[in-house]
This record gives sequence, C-alpha cells and structure tokens, in this order.
Amino acid sequence: MMPPLVPRWPAWLFCWRAACIQGASVRQRMWVGPSRIPGLGGPRGAWGTSPVAPRGSCSASSRAPEVTLTPERYPVRRLPFSVVSEDDLAALEQVVPGRVVTDPEELEAPNLDWLRTVRGSSKVLLRPRTTQEVAHILRYCHERNLAVNPQGGNTGMVGGSTPVFDEVILSTALMNQVLSFQDVSGVLVCQAGCVLEALSQYVEERGFIMPLDLGAKGSCHIGGNVATNAGGLRFLRYGSLRGTVLGLEVVLADGTVLNCLTSLRKDNTGYDLKQLFIGSEGTLGVITAVSILCPPKPSAVNVAFLGPPHPCREGPSSPPCPPGLLGPPRLPAHRRPCSASGCPGFAEVLQTFRTCRAMLGEILSAFEFMDAECMKLVRLHLGLSCPVQESPFYVLIETAGSGPGHDAEKLGCFLEQALDSGLVTDGTLGSDERRIKMLWALRERITEALSRDGYVYKYDLSLPLDRLYDLVGDLRARLGPSAKHVVGYGHLGDGNLHLNVTAETFSASLLGALEPYVYEWTAGQRGSVSAEHGLGFKKKDVLGYSKPPEALQLMRQLKALLDPKGILNPYKMLPTHA
Amino acid sequence: MMPPLVPRWPAWLFCWRAACIQGASVRQRMWVGPSRIPGLGGPRGAWGTSPVAPRGSCSASSRAPEVTLTPERYPVRRLPFSVVSEDDLAALEQVVPGRVVTDPEELEAPNLDWLRTVRGSSKVLLRPRTTQEVAHILRYCHERNLAVNPQGGNTGMVGGSTPVFDEVILSTALMNQVLSFQDVSGVLVCQAGCVLEALSQYVEERGFIMPLDLGAKGSCHIGGNVATNAGGLRFLRYGSLRGTVLGLEVVLADGTVLNCLTSLRKDNTGYDLKQLFIGSEGTLGVITAVSILCPPKPSAVNVAFLGPPHPCREGPSSPPCPPGLLGPPRLPAHRRPCSASGCPGFAEVLQTFRTCRAMLGEILSAFEFMDAECMKLVRLHLGLSCPVQESPFYVLIETAGSGPGHDAEKLGCFLEQALDSGLVTDGTLGSDERRIKMLWALRERITEALSRDGYVYKYDLSLPLDRLYDLVGDLRARLGPSAKHVVGYGHLGDGNLHLNVTAETFSASLLGALEPYVYEWTAGQRGSVSAEHGLGFKKKDVLGYSKPPEALQLMRQLKALLDPKGILNPYKMLPTHA
Repeated sequence: MMPPLVPRWPAWLFCWRAACIQGASVRQRMWVGPSRIPGLGGPRGAWGTSPVAPRGSCSASSRAPEVTLTPERYPVRRLPFSVVSEDDLAALEQVVPGRVVTDPEELEAPNLDWLRTVRGSSKVLLRPRTTQEVAHILRYCHERNLAVNPQGGNTGMVGGSTPVFDEVILSTALMNQVLSFQDVSGVLVCQAGCVLEALSQYVEERGFIMPLDLGAKGSCHIGGNVATNAGGLRFLRYGSLRGTVLGLEVVLADGTVLNCLTSLRKDNTGYDLKQLFIGSEGTLGVITAVSILCPPKPSAVNVAFLGPPHPCREGPSSPPCPPGLLGPPRLPAHRRPCSASGCPGFAEVLQTFRTCRAMLGEILSAFEFMDAECMKLVRLHLGLSCPVQESPFYVLIETAGSGPGHDAEKLGCFLEQALDSGLVTDGTLGSDERRIKMLWALRERITEALSRDGYVYKYDLSLPLDRLYDLVGDLRARLGPSAKHVVGYGHLGDGNLHLNVTAETFSASLLGALEPYVYEWTAGQRGSVSAEHGLGFKKKDVLGYSKPPEALQLMRQLKALLDPKGILNPYKMLPTHA
Repeated sequence: MMPPLVPRWPAWLFCWRAACIQGASVRQRMWVGPSRIPGLGGPRGAWGTSPVAPRGSCSASSRAPEVTLTPERYPVRRLPFSVVSEDDLAALEQVVPGRVVTDPEELEAPNLDWLRTVRGSSKVLLRPRTTQEVAHILRYCHERNLAVNPQGGNTGMVGGSTPVFDEVILSTALMNQVLSFQDVSGVLVCQAGCVLEALSQYVEERGFIMPLDLGAKGSCHIGGNVATNAGGLRFLRYGSLRGTVLGLEVVLADGTVLNCLTSLRKDNTGYDLKQLFIGSEGTLGVITAVSILCPPKPSAVNVAFLGPPHPCREGPSSPPCPPGLLGPPRLPAHRRPCSASGCPGFAEVLQTFRTCRAMLGEILSAFEFMDAECMKLVRLHLGLSCPVQESPFYVLIETAGSGPGHDAEKLGCFLEQALDSGLVTDGTLGSDERRIKMLWALRERITEALSRDGYVYKYDLSLPLDRLYDLVGDLRARLGPSAKHVVGYGHLGDGNLHLNVTAETFSASLLGALEPYVYEWTAGQRGSVSAEHGLGFKKKDVLGYSKPPEALQLMRQLKALLDPKGILNPYKMLPTHA
C-alpha cells in the first residue's frame, strides 16, 4: 500500500533529527541564486510545461485581440498638455541622440501594461543613459508643458507605468549601471534601470542579497521598485524599502537634480526627502539612482510547502506522479484528522503562522499562503503539479539563517509541533536548489496563471489577520457564475491579501459588482485598498477609502509644490476629483 | 596567583560547548526587562556608586551656576511672533483647564536642556491630554501668531526640545495612554507622551519588545523619539523608525488633525505622509499618537563585553576588585599577543565586527564600542568599574534570538574564533539580568559621565567604517590641553560615532577649534553631521555639510507649505540663513 519513495513519519522525523544532531545538512541547502521563477532565466520552466516570458515584454503586439485604449474604457479626459511636435523630436534627439524611439511597432509594448488592461497612445519613447540626460529631458518637457510617463520594467499591477494618452515615455532601460558596492557594509549604489534579478546576482556573488524579491524580478527595475515602494516576498524579514533604501538621486519635474544618494545607514540631517519619492509612483520626480542596504546572504535556506499528501499516493483515480516530485523529504501522510483536509480552514492557517513565528523567530523569512483555486490555476495554465494532496489552503514557509544545523533543527521542531497539534498533516520540503525553485514557483507564478485565465480584476489589500480571507468567500457568493474564478493568496505574514477575480473578458457589470463593494468592505476593516501595488491609474480614485480628506488635501499640496504643471505621470495616483 | 572564581580558557570553553551540546543554558539568560541603566527605575545604580536621575528633569534649577540664556550665547534673533498676553492665558485655560503652567519655578526645568547648554525663557507651558486639546491649542496659537515649542521628555542632544526665546511650551507629558495593542501582530498604538521605558514594560509583559531602545528610555517620550527619528541601541537589528512606525496622528500648525494612524504593515495608498513628520523635530506638526510594530521578545539574550583581563587579576598595583564582578562567565586571560592590548587597535575592532556579523548573523542585536577615555570617565564620575583589563577599545556585543542553545553555541564559536585569531584576548559575558545590566551600563552611561565632566561639545557622526575613529585622534592632536577629554564611542554596527569633547566651561575659542573643522572633516568623508541626534537648535546651521543646496531649498518649501507662519519649533532644524 505504501509507495516506496515516501518515508513515513517516524523514519522521516528520525532522519531529520539525526541530521540536526550530527550537523549534517540533509534538509537545508545553500542559497540557490536569484531566480525562483522557472523560465525567467531560460527557455522553459524546470517544472512546468509552458514557456514563460518576462513581464513587461510578453504581451506586446502579437496576441489578439487588441487591448482597448484606456480613454475608451475609463472615464478620463486629456489634460491640456502640449502635443509632441517635430520640433520637439528634433530637440530631444539632441539630448539623447539615436535614442528617441518613434517607430509605432516599437511603441506598442511600452504603451501597454503586461496585464493587457490599459493602453496608451504615446508617440515617443526616450532612452536616456545618464542623470544629466534625464534632467535635460525634464527641463525641456517642463518648459514645453509636455507630459512625461516614467517607465521602468513596466511590470506594475495598477496601470501606473504606461501612458494614458500621449505622454512622452521616459524609459530607464539604459540606466543599468552599478555605481558602487561596499563589501563590508553591503551598500549597493546603482542606476534606476538595473533589473532586480541582475542586481540580485551581482550582490549574491559578493555575499549579500537584495532586501526585496518579487515574482517580476526578471523584468522590473530597481527604480520602479522604489517608486512603487514594492513589498514582495522578503518584506516579512527585511521590512520596507523605506528602511532599506539609504539614498536616492531624483530629477524633479523642472529638471533640478536632487542628489540625496548617501550610503549611510543613519542620517538625521533635515527632512528625509527621499521618502517623498519612495512610493510616489513617478508623480513627484524621476528616480535616477538608488542606494540600498543589502543584508548578508544567509548560509542556509529551507522551504516547507504544507498540505496533505499528493493524491497519487492515496486515491485510485489519482493522476500519475510527475517525475522528480517523490524524492525526500516529505512530511508523513498519517495523523490527518480527516482524509481530505491538511489545513482544514483558514483559522488553522493563522494558527500555523503564530506557531511558526514563535518557533522559527529570527530565521523565518517568508510565510505565504494560497487557496485551492490558485493551485487549480497554476496547474491548468502553467502545467505545474501540486506536490501535496488537495487542500483548501497551502502554506509556503521559508527560513533563512546563518546556522544550517540550527535552522534545520528549529524547522524540524516547528513541523513536529504543527503535525502533533493537527494544524497540518502533510507537506514537502525543499532540499536542493531545483526543488526550492519548484516550490516557490507554485506561489510566485499565480499572477502569471491568472493572466492566462482571462481578464483579471486585481485587488491588493491589507487586512487584519483574522479577517484576511473572509472577503474571498463573500465574493464567491456575491458574484456566483459571473466570475470565472475568485482566488485569494498572498503574504500572510504581512497581512497582505491578493484577491483576484477572473472573467473571460472585461465586463462593466462585473466591475460594478466588485466595486465599490471590495473597497467598502476593506475600509470597514480599516484596511488598505492598496497594500503594495500602489494606486497607479486604475486605483487612483479609491485612495479615499484608506486615507482621510486631510491627507488627500496634503497630498495634492505636495504634488502642486513639486510638480506645479502636473507633467509627471499625470492621471495617476491622486484621485481625479477634488 | 589565580583568583578562584575565574575559570581559565580550556575549562570555560569546555563548559560553554558542553552547555550548547546538551541544550543547557549556562551562558544565556531570559530577556531581562526594559531598563539597562541602573538607577533609572530605582534609587541608585546596582553597580555604580552614584545616584542617577532620569534625563530631562535632573538638571533644572538647583545646581549652580545658572546656564546662560540661549540668545546670549548664540547669535539668534527673535522672530516677530506675538507675545503671550493675559488674554491668551485666559483663553488657553479654557482649552486645558488647570493645565496652564506659569509658575516661574515650574518653568525652569522645561526651559533648560538636560545637558545644561541651552536655556529659553518661556512663560507658559500647556499640558493637553487629548489630540483635540492639542488641535485647539495650535489653532489658537496659529491665529494669534504665537510660537510653539513641542516638548516630550526633553532628553534631546541638540537643543531641539527647549524654547529659544518665549515660545509656548506644549508638553506631551499627560498624553500617556496606550490606545491599543494587538497581541498577534505586535502593533502598539499609543499617545505621544508615553515614556519609552513604560511602553517597553507594557509590551514585554505581552511577549514583545519595543523596536528601539535608548539610554534615555526612562524619560524620553515615544512622540519625541519619532519626531527626532531616534536611532539607539537596537537599530542594528530592527532598523529605522521609518520602517517600524506604521502610522501617526499629527496636528498641523493650523490645528488640522491628520489621522494616518493605521496599524497595517503595508499601505501604499498615496504619499506616505507620516514620513514627513518622522525626524522633522516638531517643525512640521505635533505628533499626538503613534502606531508602531513591536518585534517578538527574544527568548534568549547574551551580552559579551570584550577586552583584556581586569587589572586586579594581573598586576601588583591593581585596585581591589569590586564585589560581584568575578562571577562566571569570563573569557580566558591567556593567548594574548602582548599583555597590554586586547583590541590593540581600531582595525581589530572592525575585524571583530566583520567576524561577528558573519558568524552571529541574524541573532546579532548590538555591536557597540567605546574607547579607553570613555571607560576612564564612567569610572571617575559614576564609580563604575571596568570588568576587563585596560585596553584602547572595548566592544559590547549583544545577541537576541529564539533558541537559547543555538544562540549560545553561535556566540561560543564566534568568541573562540575571535580569540584564536588574536582579535580579542579577554572579555566577560552576561549570565544573568543584573550582570547584563551592568555591562550595558558601561556603554549607556557614557553620556551621563560626560555631562559630569564639564561642558560637553557633542558630535554625532555617520562615517565610513574604516575612517570611523580617525577623527578622534586628529582632534586630540589638534586640541591639545585646551580640551579636558576627547572621547569616541557609539554604534559601530551602524557606522555611527559619538565624538565628545569636554572642557571645564563653555569656551568660544575651543568651539572655534572644533567647528567647522569637525564638519568639514565629516563632509570630506561624505558622512553625516547628524547621524541620529537631529539638528535641533545647536546643529541647524551645519545642515549644508551633509545636504546639497537643492535639498535645503526643498526643505524650506516643505516648511513653508506645512507651517506658513513658522510657529512650530522656530529657530530649529533649518539653517538661519538662506
């Protein structure tokens, strides 16, 4: 009855403990490198069966149907900016010779967001290489009253990085130089257009890691990460960019260069101006360089993916097991309170988090969750296989620490406790680089799977932990068959729910059923209607659900102070109506 | 020849390792509670021989000679604010009945900084209890053009919390209520006047700690901590308040209440307005409530104080050992490369830090250093005893973690490595609450010892690690006998040097020898002329050494936007001259 490759509980735990005591490394691995998404660095996923392309470039022009222009879908009117003229193009060619892009085909991708939900009609994209070139461009556009759309990797979730009308696109793609790295302090200084994954590789070769990690790492630019105050997968451990970004260089709307590119951990001289630009989504200035504190690279990383056993081990109708999934280590299959549920409900997920945080302490580096619908979609659209039996929820736990034996022992104790108390009944552990990437891919590629499921209505909410998942169930009941899928996943350790609803195509009636309901529900919990994605174009009008009128007023004043003509990323972040 | 209570190297290391292997807790302790300064919670120091009073109230009126009024010592002119009239007092009495203080004796302490370096002449102090009272006060003062000096614990280092002329003092002392605490997330929401130590006690009883810790904890207010972006002793581990403060409630200059008191870890809805007020030293608004993320309380804390053996164990002329110092654990006395040097130079201190960070990783919670002159002063003025033999430098290392056995093993391995490589040759470890407090007192009470040495010229610099101590030597040579003491200590792990010079009394010529030399030297290293103390009144004119003119310009614009009449904490933070 027992598959030969599945160690049962006592043998497994014995092995684990033995490894800990002897200082062996059976269940921990060395740091595996930057990319957790199979395919982002290669032609196809190591586990999945579908080719994967980086965000920001995958969805440009080839696929039908064409995306509706933003002003045709959303009620937005062009503000009275100037229109780019031939004279303007000639003048800009003087600033960035050979790097003024006007070819309509080349402009298709940067006019469209990777989710294929908003599309602008910009006629020109500029590719500066230096801060001075950015300053010249902005000075010119400011004088000419030309609107400017700063763009990094174009991986945003809220339509913040694509033009709404004909804004000049200012791309940071060629500003991709590392300026300095201090190998004692771990301070990296680089241009804004460096791709996060490339930076990760760079600092890992020097014994450090980037303090942030995102599914979009293969495409997103560090300047864009900072401009949107990106959260991501390491937030739980290393905190916000507001703490890890040490300095910024920013070009203001009128072309003034604001050099606050310090590399010091502490600097209390005057107002911390860089904070104005972190998370301001390009509406207050264009970030041209970033100084960021990188934590030392952990010497050991473990990943546990928790849930009941894979169906292929249990039921007669199970599909054949994919190769490579059955290797050690796996948690035991017995002790399940009932055969169908590993985490029988969200309350158990929360209790697992509490237990985990208490027992893993300072080595806990991620606590992610996804529901059964997410698993269904990554299976369906990406060909990924669930490594454990079906369950209403799945949990991914990562530890990162400096003592491989200690970390393994702590994780083992936690898992034993979680099993003994019935919080989880099965799971699988990452024991090598490939397996850890596979486990992370299940969580990281949900966004990609959703985008293949149809039009996606995306909500990124901060909520009190005990209510984090309630809205998902509410919405399933509310929407019924009008939605294709309603899924919930996210950074549970940060109180951050990614709630996504898919449908075959965009539908105003479905949108009407979702909004303002989702926002009102969130506001009722004193939550945030944008935890980490920002507001961009698509969420700008819901700011008031999370901030009082006095705050909106002050934000408008700040915008007016820093960008009096409003040329920087217009139609974004601040609500249309006063 | 060997004192009976000092285990030598092999026996000690054997014990340490045995404890680690067996999971015993010989060299680690449970968390010891909030106060590391002996005497701040009681009548006298547990180790020292001098009574200690909390900052902010110790130096008021009783001690001679009287401190010179600020405008008599510094070139500053009163701005054309109104003067508080009898009608004003009557109106304010309506707002905070029974809490309008005008008694000259009662006003002496809040008019004077605890370092006795600046003194104002305010005629009225207000003690609101609620945000609404603060709003009424500011609305009134704004209308009447009365300048306002917000004041928390009055523990600042740069004259930022005392009036310069006759500003109305707005005290947060009665705003000391905890508003909520979430025991799952560790989010504390409280009024701005809560004393840091009281908050520490509150959250520790619930299994958490405050993310910051200061020598002034017994007096300072959390609102003041946030307003100055205080760094302190846990910065290395838990980072800046810019990351751990989740929300603020602030009253603007005109009385508008800005409620951004969220308890969410992530919230990317609009500009992060609270960042404007963190570190703005009361010049942009008055913080009335704080939401802050508290980390879980570590289950084990270890402290190592490193240096050569105590003289009483070695030389014939050593003083008698103070009682209580000789208990275990101590590091062994042999293996010294030469008898007089434990950390023979600063290069060894830096290498100790690198080794320590690599080997202790995520459990390292503090790496502090002090030079021999500091030790001399805490001995001389506070009666503290050096627990190890004299050395040019001393290092205090703290670990805090969730696995007592693991932590002890990691620390043991590090110490063994540091000893084997000759970086340090002796030291002592904290093995119980009292001892750990004693060891921390050596570092935390340096400020107090300095203040008893005479007039103190204080500099709080961020510098590149490899140049961190160079300026101290430079200054000793430069100043010669005109300075009583030139000392260097601080948060080495954060690149933060506290450079202090003492003299019998204030001397303009000594000041002239120090400034702008110190600032120019620091600017030459691209350092910060205020790492964590802020600028306040005394440092406001040196902002330009660390920030470019474009930044100063934007700071002035922000001040004008938020406080157009300039009534909030005038004469502070921004330079006098344009």
